Amino acid sequence: MSVGTELLLGEITDTNAAFLAGDLKGRGVTLHFKTTVGDNLARVVSTLKQALERADLVILGGGLGPTDDDLTREAIAEVVGETPIVDEVYLEQLRGYFLSRGRTFPEQNVKQAWVLPSSEALPNPVGTAPGWFVRPVFGPYAGKIIVALPGPPREMKPMWLEQVIKRLNLPPSGFYHRTFRTFGIGESHIAEKLGELTLMANPSVATYARRDGVHVRVAASADALEGAKTLAHPVEERVKSALEGFVYGTDAQTLPQILGALLLKKGQTLSVLESMTGGLILDELSNESGSSAWLRGGAVAYTLSAKQRFGVALEPGVSEVSGEAALEMATRARAFFGSDWAISTTGVAGPDTLEGKPVGTLFVGIAGPSGSRFIETMGAGDRRTLKERSSMSALGLLWRALLADSSVTRSGEDQ
Amino acid sequence: MSVGTELLLGEITDTNAAFLAGDLKGRGVTLHFKTTVGDNLARVVSTLKQALERADLVILGGGLGPTDDDLTREAIAEVVGETPIVDEVYLEQLRGYFLSRGRTFPEQNVKQAWVLPSSEALPNPVGTAPGWFVRPVFGPYAGKIIVALPGPPREMKPMWLEQVIKRLNLPPSGFYHRTFRTFGIGESHIAEKLGELTLMANPSVATYARRDGVHVRVAASADALEGAKTLAHPVEERVKSALEGFVYGTDAQTLPQILGALLLKKGQTLSVLESMTGGLILDELSNESGSSAWLRGGAVAYTLSAKQRFGVALEPGVSEVSGEAALEMATRARAFFGSDWAISTTGVAGPDTLEGKPVGTLFVGIAGPSGSRFIETMGAGDRRTLKERSSMSALGLLWRALLADSSVTRSGEDQ
Repeated sequence: MSVGTELLLGEITDTNAAFLAGDLKGRGVTLHFKTTVGDNLARVVSTLKQALERADLVILGGGLGPTDDDLTREAIAEVVGETPIVDEVYLEQLRGYFLSRGRTFPEQNVKQAWVLPSSEALPNPVGTAPGWFVRPVFGPYAGKIIVALPGPPREMKPMWLEQVIKRLNLPPSGFYHRTFRTFGIGESHIAEKLGELTLMANPSVATYARRDGVHVRVAASADALEGAKTLAHPVEERVKSALEGFVYGTDAQTLPQILGALLLKKGQTLSVLESMTGGLILDELSNESGSSAWLRGGAVAYTLSAKQRFGVALEPGVSEVSGEAALEMATRARAFFGSDWAISTTGVAGPDTLEGKPVGTLFVGIAGPSGSRFIETMGAGDRRTLKERSSMSALGLLWRALLADSSVTRSGEDQ
Repeated sequence: MSVGTELLLGEITDTNAAFLAGDLKGRGVTLHFKTTVGDNLARVVSTLKQALERADLVILGGGLGPTDDDLTREAIAEVVGETPIVDEVYLEQLRGYFLSRGRTFPEQNVKQAWVLPSSEALPNPVGTAPGWFVRPVFGPYAGKIIVALPGPPREMKPMWLEQVIKRLNLPPSGFYHRTFRTFGIGESHIAEKLGELTLMANPSVATYARRDGVHVRVAASADALEGAKTLAHPVEERVKSALEGFVYGTDAQTLPQILGALLLKKGQTLSVLESMTGGLILDELSNESGSSAWLRGGAVAYTLSAKQRFGVALEPGVSEVSGEAALEMATRARAFFGSDWAISTTGVAGPDTLEGKPVGTLFVGIAGPSGSRFIETMGAGDRRTLKERSSMSALGLLWRALLADSSVTRSGEDQ
């Protein structure tokens, strides 16, 4: 249950739900329903009651703040039929938290120090709202577990992982799954290649079209993890061989991560000169910790004069949105930054056409130790979607180029 | 209702829900519940029944694909007690869609041409799954409206806006709201400044801590929009004056958008040299359409040798993570790209400390027509969170600098 009117007003996207769902799955807990409800006591109470009637464990996120709109504590108290009391020790800690920051303690925050007879307060090192771990001993929900977590993801996640999991005392999971991440092949083409594999129930094979390509997931259930793995193994092998040449990584491996590992192994470096993608490729690459070891640097250059500062020179009449321009940009970026590899993007992100080229046009340039080339593609979508797809195309094309290339740079040679 | 096991497995984040919630709010439709349910016919049916019992309009997203797991059509048919029939005209269109792409028509896709006696198929120009607009004439849900939309956002959004809205025939909304977006002030500090304003019911004033700063929302309801506006106006004025100097924009206005408008008005340009933020600032700025008019370009430079290529020179003993380095980076980026303004970031995104500085350290450099300065801040969070907060800090500090600066560049002078 996600609690908060702001979620029903569309003001924020609920990312906690996806995090918890994924984590529960990995621990063998089956999630049947997820409900979002506003800051309305009657509706939170009725939703919580229904949830407790159909599940053993109910997790609530949000509504633990200090204001009158934060009603999660009140709702739980009503549902389990208990009266909150103030935990004086925690109240002192709360006061100290404010004092140590030179702020006066707002009296409305007292309710963040509430506990119930059947609740345990979960410490929150990142914020002021403790969580609640509730195991009602009496009443219709005796034996069920209610967990209340703060809404902000950076408070929710550590509390879930460090405080809640150990209290749940879950049995080892008999659920196994592996995701294959692909580049350069569509969902229906994959379905053809997989054939009857997608009709199986356990292990099951499912495809998901994602922002970063189609994912293929093999999942199996058994009494214990080992049995599930054994069940899944032959199917995994068949999926791998059916999709040979298209799978760049498994599970949580991203393209930037795979590219970083490939470059590190080769002892080579990369630079980027972006026009169409406007910094998104650099942003995605630099999300990888340790990327400074293989990402030499990069730049965003829209105008011809900005491109010229990196040495880009175009023959008269050659469009800035062209394969030649992409090639020149990649070659010049490689020289400017002194990297082994360079990729470039030029195209039309929209909303308007550019130099007579339609929105969605993309040219990717790739320069490497054994030569350079460009690839033209065409995408659809709004400006942000096009930027994202174009970034993925460029990274996927670089992945292919790295795999096809046999050059290795001796460690330190190019440093 | 969001339908899809992948949502309960945490494999994707449900962004459709936030979009629809926000859109409904603006049209005066109150959203009470949002539920996610897996690809399980019994659970989709029971959730849909419950939804129809407590609401006049139920919107389903997802489950319209061609596979056996796509059960939304089956569930609606069961709930309204009708039998699907194949729409031969649409089936021909579907076949044509595949043929025109040189692909054979998969027979399982026939069910995407299903209709019910009380359903109307909604065209999908972006994909193969038409939506459904269902108005049951008989049975317990006669008079209610069920809308089924495809799961992919780029298919869902146009169908909602172009096909569903006109069929819903909603009365004009009497709901008015305005969001003030702030930079450089915390939620509790804002609460202090707003005082008793936050205790009002209609108009109401609420604060939300967001990735891009705290948002303050004034909302009012009345019989008609004009009345709601009149009600909200004096409160809006009080909020504005209480938060003077901190509000950078209203409603959907983002910092990059505001910065672009300020720069355009001054006839000035910007460049960026990023280390800590690794391209995220450039990505965010270039998400603005038309940004090529004021964003001269920018670069990501982690290593000293990459920074040197832009002219950055540091005295011996000066750390690359320092105010001096940030200042030098901004000054050199301004010269390299020939822009009126430049911002730079250097710091520690983690996971490891750097040059003895703790994770979260950030130095922002700002160089402009009237001089340059640096600002040191300290943040908390993981690598991605730190990159996001640091980008926001840099953009917010630039916003302040632009407001404080009186220089104007004559149009064309610096082009």
